[in-house]
Amino acid sequence: MRTYLDCYPCFVRQALSAARMAGATDSEQWEILQQTFALLQDFELGATPPEIGTVIHRIVREDTGNGDPYAAVKATSTREALAMLPRLQTIVSEAADPLDAALRLSIAGNIIDFGMGDGHSFGLWQTVERVLDQPFGVDDRPAFYATLDGAGEVLYLADNAGETVFDRVLIELLDVPVVYVVKGGPVLNDATVDDAVAAGLDRVAQIVDNGAAAPGTVLQHCSDEFRLRFEQAAMVIAKGQGNYETLSAAGPRVFNLLQVKCPVIARDVGQPVGSIVLKQAGVDG
Amino acid sequence: MRTYLDCYPCFVRQALSAARMAGATDSEQWEILQQTFALLQDFELGATPPEIGTVIHRIVREDTGNGDPYAAVKATSTREALAMLPRLQTIVSEAADPLDAALRLSIAGNIIDFGMGDGHSFGLWQTVERVLDQPFGVDDRPAFYATLDGAGEVLYLADNAGETVFDRVLIELLDVPVVYVVKGGPVLNDATVDDAVAAGLDRVAQIVDNGAAAPGTVLQHCSDEFRLRFEQAAMVIAKGQGNYETLSAAGPRVFNLLQVKCPVIARDVGQPVGSIVLKQAGVDG
Repeated sequence: MRTYLDCYPCFVRQALSAARMAGATDSEQWEILQQTFALLQDFELGATPPEIGTVIHRIVREDTGNGDPYAAVKATSTREALAMLPRLQTIVSEAADPLDAALRLSIAGNIIDFGMGDGHSFGLWQTVERVLDQPFGVDDRPAFYATLDGAGEVLYLADNAGETVFDRVLIELLDVPVVYVVKGGPVLNDATVDDAVAAGLDRVAQIVDNGAAAPGTVLQHCSDEFRLRFEQAAMVIAKGQGNYETLSAAGPRVFNLLQVKCPVIARDVGQPVGSIVLKQAGVDG
Repeated sequence: MRTYLDCYPCFVRQALSAARMAGATDSEQWEILQQTFALLQDFELGATPPEIGTVIHRIVREDTGNGDPYAAVKATSTREALAMLPRLQTIVSEAADPLDAALRLSIAGNIIDFGMGDGHSFGLWQTVERVLDQPFGVDDRPAFYATLDGAGEVLYLADNAGETVFDRVLIELLDVPVVYVVKGGPVLNDATVDDAVAAGLDRVAQIVDNGAAAPGTVLQHCSDEFRLRFEQAAMVIAKGQGNYETLSAAGPRVFNLLQVKCPVIARDVGQPVGSIVLKQAGVDG
C-alpha cells in the first residue's frame, strides 16, 4: 500500500509520541520533529508507510540513545496477554469451530498497538468478545483454509508484543509446523525474538527474525535468509496493519489478518475502522 | 500562548484539510504539505499557533488560487445560525439572568470551527443546551461584569462565521457601544466584514477589520489603526481559541471567551476539552 497524504500528520504525531516514549527532553523532541520534517520532504511518493516509519523510529532511537523505547510497554502487554492465555485456550477448546475461534482471537490480539495512539486505551476483553461474534469485513477464509490444507509449513509474520500470545493460541491449533517471524531489532512495540520467547512462542513454533527493524515487512530491508524463506513459503500469515501496508500486493500465498484501526487503511481495504479482515493478498500492478 | 510540540501534527493535518477545502488536486496537496514541512523547519519556537497557521493558510490560498477556500462553509454556517436567531433571542429574554444566558450563548457559538476537523460534526443545539447549564471551567465573570460596568465602549474580537450570530445576541444585550472586529481578509472560516454583515452585526455594532488575514489576533500583523484602537480600548472581548492563543497574556482589559476544543489549549487553560471559559487575560512574562 502506498503512503496516502493523510498519513503525513500521523507520521508527525508518531514521531512525537515515540520521542516521548523514549524519554526525550523537550529540546530532543523538537530536534526529532525537525528531522522528521526534513525526512518527509525527502521521501518519494510511493514509499509505504512502514518504510517512512522505519526511519522515524531509527531517528528517535539514535537521538535519545534509547535502543528500545517500547521495552516497558512490550513487557506489560506480554504479561497482560499471558494472564489471559488460559481463558483464550478455553474459548477455543469449547468453540463449535475451534480453528475459526482461534483465527478470530489472533485478529482480536491485533488491537494491541502503540503505534496508533499514546497508550493503553484498548479494552482487550471487550475486543475479544466483539471479534468472536463480528462478521468479517473482508472474508477470505475459504481460500485461507484451502491454502492451509495444502501447506507443509506456514510462515507466520508477527506484529506486536502481547499480540504474540493470541498468535500462540492460533498456532497451537494448526496441524502444520510454523515458523514465527519477528523483527530483527526493536521498532515501535513490534515483537523481537526476546518478546516472542517471553510470550512462549518457542513452545509452539520455530522463531526466526527477518533481519529488519521496520514495522511491517519491508522486504528490501530484510535479510537474504528471510527473503529466501519468504519466497519459498507455501503459505504466509501476515499480522497487522504494518504487514498489510507492506504485503497487501505480495500474491495469493499471503493472507493478511488485521483489525482496521485507521481511516487510511479503512479506505484502502474498503471497510470501516473497527472491521476485522482476513484478506488474501493481490498482485502488484 | 506559545506553540506546543503537540501543535505540529495538527498544523500538518490543518494544511491538508485546508488544501482539500480549497479544491487542491492530489499533487497540489502534496506540494502544500511539502511547503508546510519547510515552514515548520523555519519557524522559531515561541511563535504562537496562529502565526504559523497564518502562513499555512496563505500558502494554501496562493497555491490553489482560491482566495477564500472556506467561503461556502462560512455562508452555510451563517445561514444555519441565523435560522436559530429567534430561538436564541427567546432563550435570552426568558432567562432569569439574560446577560449570563447571552454570555453563555456567545461561548456556545464558538463550537463552530472548521479549523478543528473536517466538517459539520458539531451539534449546535446540543451545544447550546449543554453550555446554558454547564459550570464554567474558568469563571472570571465578576471581573468581566465589573469591567463592563465602567467601560464606555467594548472592542469585540470576532472569531468564526456563524459564531457571529451568537455574538450578535450578546451584543444586543450590552448597554455600551460595541466595535466588532473581524479579519482583514479570508483565513480559515474566520469572519470578514462581508461575513459579519451577512450575520446582521452591522445592526448592533460598528464593524471594523483588523487589517490581518490571521486566525486570532496577531497584533504585529494588524493595521496601525486597529492596534491604536486595541491599545486605547477600555475593555476587549476576545472570542475563541485563536484569540486565546494570541491574547492570553494581553492584560486585564482583555477577556477570552471560548470553548476548549483541543488538548493543547486544555493543558494551557488547565481545564479539560469541552470546558467553557471566560478568562481575564494575564500579563506576559
